[in-house]
Amino acid sequence: MITNIPRPPYYAVIFTSERTTGDNGYSEMADEMELLVNKQKGFLGFESARESSIGITVSYWKDLQSIRQWKVNHKHKEAREKGRSIWYKSFKVRIAKIERDYGIEKL
Amino acid sequence: MITNIPRPPYYAVIFTSERTTGDNGYSEMADEMELLVNKQKGFLGFESARESSIGITVSYWKDLQSIRQWKVNHKHKEAREKGRSIWYKSFKVRIAKIERDYGIEKL
Repeated sequence: MITNIPRPPYYAVIFTSERTTGDNGYSEMADEMELLVNKQKGFLGFESARESSIGITVSYWKDLQSIRQWKVNHKHKEAREKGRSIWYKSFKVRIAKIERDYGIEKL
Repeated sequence: MITNIPRPPYYAVIFTSERTTGDNGYSEMADEMELLVNKQKGFLGFESARESSIGITVSYWKDLQSIRQWKVNHKHKEAREKGRSIWYKSFKVRIAKIERDYGIEKL
């Protein structure tokens, strides 16, 4: 679902990736990361979609300090190392400041 | 593919959407928008993925002025109006300044 969060400014990490073939333990780690990140201070939510090999995950954060704290989490570091070596053919991480947002939600 | 663009800072428009059912002319308009946006001054590229009804499209731009110019394009306005009335159950647009990026590309 589309994440509903407080008024800007807040921060986003845009993670675009191209997966290698096969699961290779990815799904289990992804579930574990989802549990962990939800306990992380300053985490506001995330949105994710994968279409064939290309995936986009955008996570939202209160501030840059919260993003830094998640980056040094040991289990998350382990996941990122496996990402680099096994799961991803290529990826790009972009740290962004959300300056404005708007939208609609039909009930 | 993952878009490769110049060093930050640059801007992103993160468009997260939930589609209604059926195509209803969406695909044709999407193709037309892709052609048009590529001619737009300051447009740097985009990444897109849709998984079932949830889609994320991130477009990248040189500056806020370029985003504004695309927003007032007549054909794009028409597309956005149809998006609101026909194609999307909900959507969120976030304007973001990319402050930092990094990644890998295995050849």
